[in-house]
Amino acid sequence: MQDIDIIVKADNVLTMDKHFTAFNKGAIAVHKGSILAVGNAGDIMRKYTSGLVIGGNGFVAFPGLVNTHSHSPMVYFRGLADDLPLKEWLEEHIWPAEKKWLSPAFVADASELAFLEMLKSGITSCNDMYFYGDELAAAAKRIGIRAVIGAGILDFPTSTAQNAAEYLEKAEAFISRWKDDRLVTPCIAPHSAYACSPETLQKAKALSEKHSVRLHIHLSETEWEVGELMALYQSRPVNFLDSIGLFDESVTAAHCIWVEDEEIEIMAKRGVNVSHCMESNLKLASGFAPVASMLAQGIRVTFGTDGAASNNDLNILSEMSTTAKVHKALSKDPTILSARRVMLMATRWGAEAIGLGDVTGSIEMGKAADIVLADVRKPHLSPMYDPYSSIVYSMSAADVDSVIVDGKLVLNRRTLTTGDEQAILNRASDWGHRIAKKSG
Amino acid sequence: MQDIDIIVKADNVLTMDKHFTAFNKGAIAVHKGSILAVGNAGDIMRKYTSGLVIGGNGFVAFPGLVNTHSHSPMVYFRGLADDLPLKEWLEEHIWPAEKKWLSPAFVADASELAFLEMLKSGITSCNDMYFYGDELAAAAKRIGIRAVIGAGILDFPTSTAQNAAEYLEKAEAFISRWKDDRLVTPCIAPHSAYACSPETLQKAKALSEKHSVRLHIHLSETEWEVGELMALYQSRPVNFLDSIGLFDESVTAAHCIWVEDEEIEIMAKRGVNVSHCMESNLKLASGFAPVASMLAQGIRVTFGTDGAASNNDLNILSEMSTTAKVHKALSKDPTILSARRVMLMATRWGAEAIGLGDVTGSIEMGKAADIVLADVRKPHLSPMYDPYSSIVYSMSAADVDSVIVDGKLVLNRRTLTTGDEQAILNRASDWGHRIAKKSG
Ligand SMILES: [Zn+2]
Ligand SMILES: [Zn+2]
Repeated sequence: MQDIDIIVKADNVLTMDKHFTAFNKGAIAVHKGSILAVGNAGDIMRKYTSGLVIGGNGFVAFPGLVNTHSHSPMVYFRGLADDLPLKEWLEEHIWPAEKKWLSPAFVADASELAFLEMLKSGITSCNDMYFYGDELAAAAKRIGIRAVIGAGILDFPTSTAQNAAEYLEKAEAFISRWKDDRLVTPCIAPHSAYACSPETLQKAKALSEKHSVRLHIHLSETEWEVGELMALYQSRPVNFLDSIGLFDESVTAAHCIWVEDEEIEIMAKRGVNVSHCMESNLKLASGFAPVASMLAQGIRVTFGTDGAASNNDLNILSEMSTTAKVHKALSKDPTILSARRVMLMATRWGAEAIGLGDVTGSIEMGKAADIVLADVRKPHLSPMYDPYSSIVYSMSAADVDSVIVDGKLVLNRRTLTTGDEQAILNRASDWGHRIAKKSG
Repeated sequence: MQDIDIIVKADNVLTMDKHFTAFNKGAIAVHKGSILAVGNAGDIMRKYTSGLVIGGNGFVAFPGLVNTHSHSPMVYFRGLADDLPLKEWLEEHIWPAEKKWLSPAFVADASELAFLEMLKSGITSCNDMYFYGDELAAAAKRIGIRAVIGAGILDFPTSTAQNAAEYLEKAEAFISRWKDDRLVTPCIAPHSAYACSPETLQKAKALSEKHSVRLHIHLSETEWEVGELMALYQSRPVNFLDSIGLFDESVTAAHCIWVEDEEIEIMAKRGVNVSHCMESNLKLASGFAPVASMLAQGIRVTFGTDGAASNNDLNILSEMSTTAKVHKALSKDPTILSARRVMLMATRWGAEAIGLGDVTGSIEMGKAADIVLADVRKPHLSPMYDPYSSIVYSMSAADVDSVIVDGKLVLNRRTLTTGDEQAILNRASDWGHRIAKKSG
């Protein structure tokens, strides 16, 4: 009998490995950050012992969900302005608010709230893009969430840099500082083809290659963007980015709504990973990404929340449910985006899409222990015929009981173990009052 | 000082009256089933005292949500068959399951689970359509939810009746038995224009007029239905039902997806109420109801969950969020279906649409006390700039803390006060095991 850190027991353990292996009355052995073993509870309990055994009857365990596109600090602008046209929302509300409030302290406080919200909805890894990456990274480590953090690159000034050269320089320093961290993975995040010049984009790509880090970018979110690129370069966004050599498997592109069949083929050929942010796209009336076509072409489509100002939450479970349903109706085919496929997109594919396929995304021996334990003894989850269906179509964030990230029990029966939730909420309320006063 | 049954206190009390009156630091005085007063907490606390004061800082109160189309007992088939074409789903899974399992005991047990789930997501009134109405009604009274219960009418036999005449006879008896109940309101529910002959529909309408009860029907849910009606009567469903005199303000029509502009005009002119069941429509790939057009024509569009077998939950908060977002994208206009409008559709309009406009749907003096108290001290609800936005775009069912129906605290800090939740879940699990075994 080996004494280990944690044993997780559940009625169903969905490993999300390549064979969709699932264990009835299963268990997971967690030690020193990693998964030692997964299997039938009887077998696991014969080999391992632990002072910390969680779950049991009435629980389902699955890999931590992956949020492949987020702007965590924007949680502080959640609900500040809704039901507005995108241009007015951005130019008259969000950008002025960012200009006024963006600071290291804002990012540090807001990110803690965002990461707490993510853990409480079963997200164990996110792919974030914002400013003040050091504060974001430090917050991720404090709260204990796995994060790929993209240093934002723009051509215009913000409080963080004056021009592209300065953004790039700071990005390289950020990458150097964080490249060996276990929880935080730095990457480079040029905002978009319309907010960065071709030169800036190519320099960002060079930096990504030099340091072997990923590149995270917004792509074809609005019809306006397509028109803008056509006017600037006589080229649609995908064709343009491909023509300047940006695309390969190290790229995660968010949104990809206004992409034509030929563009989908290019993305598929290059191995570009797509972060589908359906709820944000719906709420801003940006459009419907052709997810069924992208999947049919073999593109790895995954789930992102985008920022909470446009969503208005950081909840991959609800993205999964909404996406599965909306694309059935769009394609007039209820058989597409099955519950298993959706689970795959939210877990193993999500991890692969942000470069963490060897680390997380499934419950397999040797991977980091990023595990969600959900309590399914609830009216809305009863009866349960198929755990994949229950998770995708009926489970809500509040059913997440406990969360392990990198072998650490960071959420224990919905209580954060790494920080003071009440203090995080109080800081959010304080910031909210100040922001509301100035925005009135 | 008057001693009363309950005082509800909240940071925000949204009354949903005609002026959208809201009280910061508000309170509601509840006594003998009704709302005695609503106003500022200071004023209320000076006039009333109670041994039961609930809520306070960190809570928001709003009228109980109205589910205008449900088939409660179908919760026991939740997740039994997903991701299938409608015809296969219905004919090879749902109908055989109903044929096998439908019984008074099934309806009694399943309805309790459904009503518990509804209360836990803030639903205080539902408009249900199924078989064994007495068992449904008795379950509603046991659990303490307000329910309009439609006696189902078909032309073909089920275990409940052999033919239309027998269904109609039983419906009339059911109406007589329940017409004076405070919580349960009987109505008549001919299934649809394709499952009932014109004669049956007209007899149902006559019964509705004779007893002054409402008529609840499925309408234009699928393209197939339109084709079927065209083949049978050379008429689209709305035109057909109008031609046989079915339509007026006492009708609630569920789905209304495949309706053309001219049909929308007819429905508007007749005052037909629409129950929009977006999540069911999406999941079955039935299509997108033209909600923006219906609203523009002045139709009272409200929210229904449909049965849990096609949704897969009984959650109006998630219908509100999904509907608000999807219709923005469909109409390419993020300003439609504002948070306030969506709240109105889910509360006051919902009550009006099922004939309970004088009884419930808003927090106003003299109405029945049907109130939701939500705990907003949560990461995903922080910060809060606008309570309507928070409820529509960020709140989830689990944020519902306590629920009052007809002046009775039926859900107290998420604990059912009228029954044994664990026993209800155990019965669901037992039925689920039996059903799974036979369906395998
Ligand atoms: Zn974004
Ligand atoms: Zn229905």
